[in-house]
Amino acid sequence: MTATAAPRNAQQTADDDVTLDAAALTPQLLGRWGHLRAFTREILKDEKFHKIEGLTKEEHRERVLGQLKALVTEGKVLRAFPERLGGGDEHGGSLAAFEELVAGDPSMQIKAGVQWGLFASAILHLGTPEQQDRLLPAAMTLETPGAFAMTEIGHGSDVASIATTATYDAETQEFVIHTPFRAAWKEYLGNAALHGQAAVVFAQLVTKGVNHGVHAFYVPVRERLADGSAGPLLPGVQSEDDGQKGGLNGIDNGRFAFDHVRVPRTDLLARYGYVAEDGTYSSPIESPGRRFFTMLGSLVQGRVSLDGAAVNAQKIALAIAVRYATERRQFPGAGGEETVLLDYGEHQRRLVPLVARTYAGLFAHAELLELFDDVFSGRNDTDESREDLETLAATLKPASTWTALSTIQTCREACGGAGFMAENRMTGLHADLDVYVTFEGDNTVLLQLVGKRLLADYAKKFKGIDAAGIARIAAERAADTVRYATPFGRALQKISDSGQAARKVAHLRGEEAQRALLTDRVETMVEEVADRLRPAQKLPDDKATALFNQHQHDLIEAAKAHADLVQWEAFTRALDAVTDDGNRTILTWLRDLYGLAVIEENLAWYLMHGRLTGERARMVSSYMTRLVGRLRPHVLGLTEAWGYAPEHLRAPIATGAEKVRQDEAIAYYRAQRASGDAPISEKALKRHAKKR
Amino acid sequence: MTATAAPRNAQQTADDDVTLDAAALTPQLLGRWGHLRAFTREILKDEKFHKIEGLTKEEHRERVLGQLKALVTEGKVLRAFPERLGGGDEHGGSLAAFEELVAGDPSMQIKAGVQWGLFASAILHLGTPEQQDRLLPAAMTLETPGAFAMTEIGHGSDVASIATTATYDAETQEFVIHTPFRAAWKEYLGNAALHGQAAVVFAQLVTKGVNHGVHAFYVPVRERLADGSAGPLLPGVQSEDDGQKGGLNGIDNGRFAFDHVRVPRTDLLARYGYVAEDGTYSSPIESPGRRFFTMLGSLVQGRVSLDGAAVNAQKIALAIAVRYATERRQFPGAGGEETVLLDYGEHQRRLVPLVARTYAGLFAHAELLELFDDVFSGRNDTDESREDLETLAATLKPASTWTALSTIQTCREACGGAGFMAENRMTGLHADLDVYVTFEGDNTVLLQLVGKRLLADYAKKFKGIDAAGIARIAAERAADTVRYATPFGRALQKISDSGQAARKVAHLRGEEAQRALLTDRVETMVEEVADRLRPAQKLPDDKATALFNQHQHDLIEAAKAHADLVQWEAFTRALDAVTDDGNRTILTWLRDLYGLAVIEENLAWYLMHGRLTGERARMVSSYMTRLVGRLRPHVLGLTEAWGYAPEHLRAPIATGAEKVRQDEAIAYYRAQRASGDAPISEKALKRHAKKR
Repeated sequence: MTATAAPRNAQQTADDDVTLDAAALTPQLLGRWGHLRAFTREILKDEKFHKIEGLTKEEHRERVLGQLKALVTEGKVLRAFPERLGGGDEHGGSLAAFEELVAGDPSMQIKAGVQWGLFASAILHLGTPEQQDRLLPAAMTLETPGAFAMTEIGHGSDVASIATTATYDAETQEFVIHTPFRAAWKEYLGNAALHGQAAVVFAQLVTKGVNHGVHAFYVPVRERLADGSAGPLLPGVQSEDDGQKGGLNGIDNGRFAFDHVRVPRTDLLARYGYVAEDGTYSSPIESPGRRFFTMLGSLVQGRVSLDGAAVNAQKIALAIAVRYATERRQFPGAGGEETVLLDYGEHQRRLVPLVARTYAGLFAHAELLELFDDVFSGRNDTDESREDLETLAATLKPASTWTALSTIQTCREACGGAGFMAENRMTGLHADLDVYVTFEGDNTVLLQLVGKRLLADYAKKFKGIDAAGIARIAAERAADTVRYATPFGRALQKISDSGQAARKVAHLRGEEAQRALLTDRVETMVEEVADRLRPAQKLPDDKATALFNQHQHDLIEAAKAHADLVQWEAFTRALDAVTDDGNRTILTWLRDLYGLAVIEENLAWYLMHGRLTGERARMVSSYMTRLVGRLRPHVLGLTEAWGYAPEHLRAPIATGAEKVRQDEAIAYYRAQRASGDAPISEKALKRHAKKR
Repeated sequence: MTATAAPRNAQQTADDDVTLDAAALTPQLLGRWGHLRAFTREILKDEKFHKIEGLTKEEHRERVLGQLKALVTEGKVLRAFPERLGGGDEHGGSLAAFEELVAGDPSMQIKAGVQWGLFASAILHLGTPEQQDRLLPAAMTLETPGAFAMTEIGHGSDVASIATTATYDAETQEFVIHTPFRAAWKEYLGNAALHGQAAVVFAQLVTKGVNHGVHAFYVPVRERLADGSAGPLLPGVQSEDDGQKGGLNGIDNGRFAFDHVRVPRTDLLARYGYVAEDGTYSSPIESPGRRFFTMLGSLVQGRVSLDGAAVNAQKIALAIAVRYATERRQFPGAGGEETVLLDYGEHQRRLVPLVARTYAGLFAHAELLELFDDVFSGRNDTDESREDLETLAATLKPASTWTALSTIQTCREACGGAGFMAENRMTGLHADLDVYVTFEGDNTVLLQLVGKRLLADYAKKFKGIDAAGIARIAAERAADTVRYATPFGRALQKISDSGQAARKVAHLRGEEAQRALLTDRVETMVEEVADRLRPAQKLPDDKATALFNQHQHDLIEAAKAHADLVQWEAFTRALDAVTDDGNRTILTWLRDLYGLAVIEENLAWYLMHGRLTGERARMVSSYMTRLVGRLRPHVLGLTEAWGYAPEHLRAPIATGAEKVRQDEAIAYYRAQRASGDAPISEKALKRHAKKR
């Protein structure tokens, strides 16, 4: 035995002594509102909440409507609403419980989101207390299923440009809701094709010849039949069915158009904008721009909850794929016995870093939910905290929804043909989650917002600086001594000199080295974009736009780097709360794996910017391989710690059926050999003949 | 105006003069069998061949069965079969036409593949002329729909380990087909759940106590009813339905088990293995291993045609997304008018490189198809050419099927909510193409085969070298002077010293520089893996396996790099055949963009290995941005050159409907402004008030 082998073996022995206590970990992973998550999961064990694959959209829509009705009575879904109306004034907890619904059927989750998270929430957040008292109860109880009519065919992410108008008619004290042309049809609305009896319609409010911008109106759209269900469309309202979609076919998405539909003056949701009887407009927010963003910002919970639901979908896919990978055998190994998939190097490399990334997403989401609760409970409701919340949601929602899609796809492929069977969940989750990356704010558009915020924070720091100062900064930057102050300290920790730290660290795996590398990247990318955009100030509009456009890609990349850092920091903070020694060791490996995976993905950047030498960079991949190997014995436990029951996973390949089949096959061959009846193989015969 | 600005403007003017002649390009893109592709496309214009989204699997299966029947009479689908049986002995052309079917409905394509490409082809390639004459006609005419029963639940990619047995009974001169345990059920077979009346069953052939390995047997499975349709299962045959899948639900996938089912001795498909009446086994191929791979190799056309179909699916998705991106407007630009999506930097960066990659895949597939035709026509049918064909198919099928999925997904996201509507094709194509990455050979398993071939070619070069020689090689390698001889010269061009060339080139965009960089990467990666695996020769089996496993990921990465190079070389060769000057210029830009995109994806590798300096590396991204900008005016034409008619694309967003809506909206606002009725915006009013 060589001298170098000894310490490695000692390390291996030490690694072998580390054990994961999954049960101890679960409560931390469920987080502050774990009891509410547990409550929802318990309810979801009932088959009636499970998605059935292969239903027609008509059957699926009926089933999901029934699920929503059952949720009203069994699901405690009204926690977010005011106590005086039977709710719980509980914001973070409400979302936590809501996010769990994805395990039953994403269509149920999103239709619940349409009803309570959008339609009823718009009344709650944009309405006056009088309007809440009058309109909320029927929305809360699903007596009035409602649509959230914001998006138009012609305008998806660009809400400010919608074309539907609400023109005040002082004579009758009514607003006239009107769709001026085809591109102004309200589009992709859940509850619009069939079930909706009312809608919150966003339109340009026009009174006394002035357009005061986008406001929300409560508009009945269908008659209510005697049995409570939706009847014919009301006069002036047109609707079309969106038909088959790529997923979420349990939701009756559709379109609305309004032909001079009149609603009473009092049904303008009037918290942020009011029209008096004579048509005089007033608002507590002077600036039309700020007013618009305040209204939209009050609906941030959609993005917050999609972040959580996406992480949950990832967990389900990984729990299934990892379980299968620990049982499925394929190709005989050295000893003749077939090898378990998770013992293949490539299979480990595909799945284990995804487990790490899912933990990062999970911890980051927990912080987002806390921030959301702080703001919406009023404990910390300032312009600044709202802006931080919106930025953090815009940061994490793209990261987690894209990660969910790629994770689910990798899991599906890692399960081979079995992964393509609908019963094993992957394909359905991918189809349903697909639209999460473009709805409630297209990911690319959201990341651009984040990028602009990063730029703004950067600019703030250097406000009022003169030309000489800028030249000095540029010189300093080249020497890597100017550091960009990271935004919203809550989400990021500033370190004093990340660039230098990155070069000094002895171990890439060290926490400080990872932080330095990740932070430095965000800071430098933002600096570089800011630098390149600087000439824009002096350019005419079209040239400035062209310049910005040229660097749009870089800005979005900077925002993605920021998201990675935010998740890494959340993961790191979460380590402090782990009390069990084994768990902390294993989660630290997992955090390191996540950090290294992010660094590996962006290795070219680190090399080009001189942050890593070629030699150091080559170590990243081998460190990862080593970490993946160390984590191998604990991967199943790490997915089990998410706490899903068989009723939540449901995939036949995650039930042990594969192992039963394998064991039966092994026993068969064993018995055959023992009986002496086994045919001898031609290959063996030929080998034998050669030897003779 | 500065001095540096002038040449750029001159360049821009020169660029503006370049025009694309899409119509002139189309014949080259359709390739050698363009007339057959055109024939199939013409047929596909008929609605009866179009996929209807949202059918139940029962309805969809019936529809696709009907489509196959129509193809028999209208589709000329029998070209690959012998002339004496009514076919055309036309191999490449048959696949070319077959690949086009994906535009109608991928389920139709794959069900046709099951019937003619697998079931009937197995009879053709594994049967004797007598068996062809006896069994082929009913398979060709669809009188006998058949299943291809190779895969078992317990063994997907590892066909050699299947457990179904065919034991010869000399007394009755029959084979007894038997499924010994649950894991040996035949699984995921098209035509198994409903329509199949026979199956080609792969089983371990046992006679006189010896297992001669996997052979194929013709096994009737269902009665034929008076109307020709499939009746009850025959005695001893069990079947189960796979139920709902992630896609391809027009195919009745299912399982078979056999309980001592007897077939006549003469129904062993006996081209490569024969059992005499007394049970004596004989084969024209002595080695059981080579025999096995020869039998499987004769079915390579599945992989070849999936490569082509995947590229076609990409083309359809991109043709739709690019058309939409040239019409859809979102967010007001500098001039007040809303900006077309394709004028956004990020949107260009997402779509244009995919168009380049699709061209690369298209040209590489054309070469694969030529090689396939050379081998299967007998013009160049040697062990070597067969091995090259199998390696090339195993190289390209993973590349194109993965690219298809990521391309379709990006297109779907680039179309926002509209991309999620089933009518716009993206989600259906993704769902249907999903399984292409794991069936007909799991992509990861195929790439490992390619990697092993690359290693073997490398080892061959250094065969018989002594220890001192190896040391010398290692030293030379460090100096970048030993070069790995690229395999199958047909697919690759060797260059003399790529490493040095890469450092010398003046322009990254130059063809030689790209070739040098891409080739060098493959060579070096293979060398490195070979180097690391060298100790394996002296290790015990389990340690050697562990060592291999540790480098499995690197080997697969080397195979992926090889695929990139093969596609790049095919693209480059294709440029020679472009006669129109404008077309050649534009396609050269496109080839450069593809080359640079591959280099950018692997930039870290080039930096770590000293092949690019940091400074040079930074230029890659800006070159790409510049190329994308240059290609911007031609992108629509480049997708139109693929020659699809509206009946093939079918997506409402690719019909100009978006432009009609936009124009209507613009006209409305123009008329409103002209009338003087337009409300003034509160924002403008406030700006105005401030100025006063």
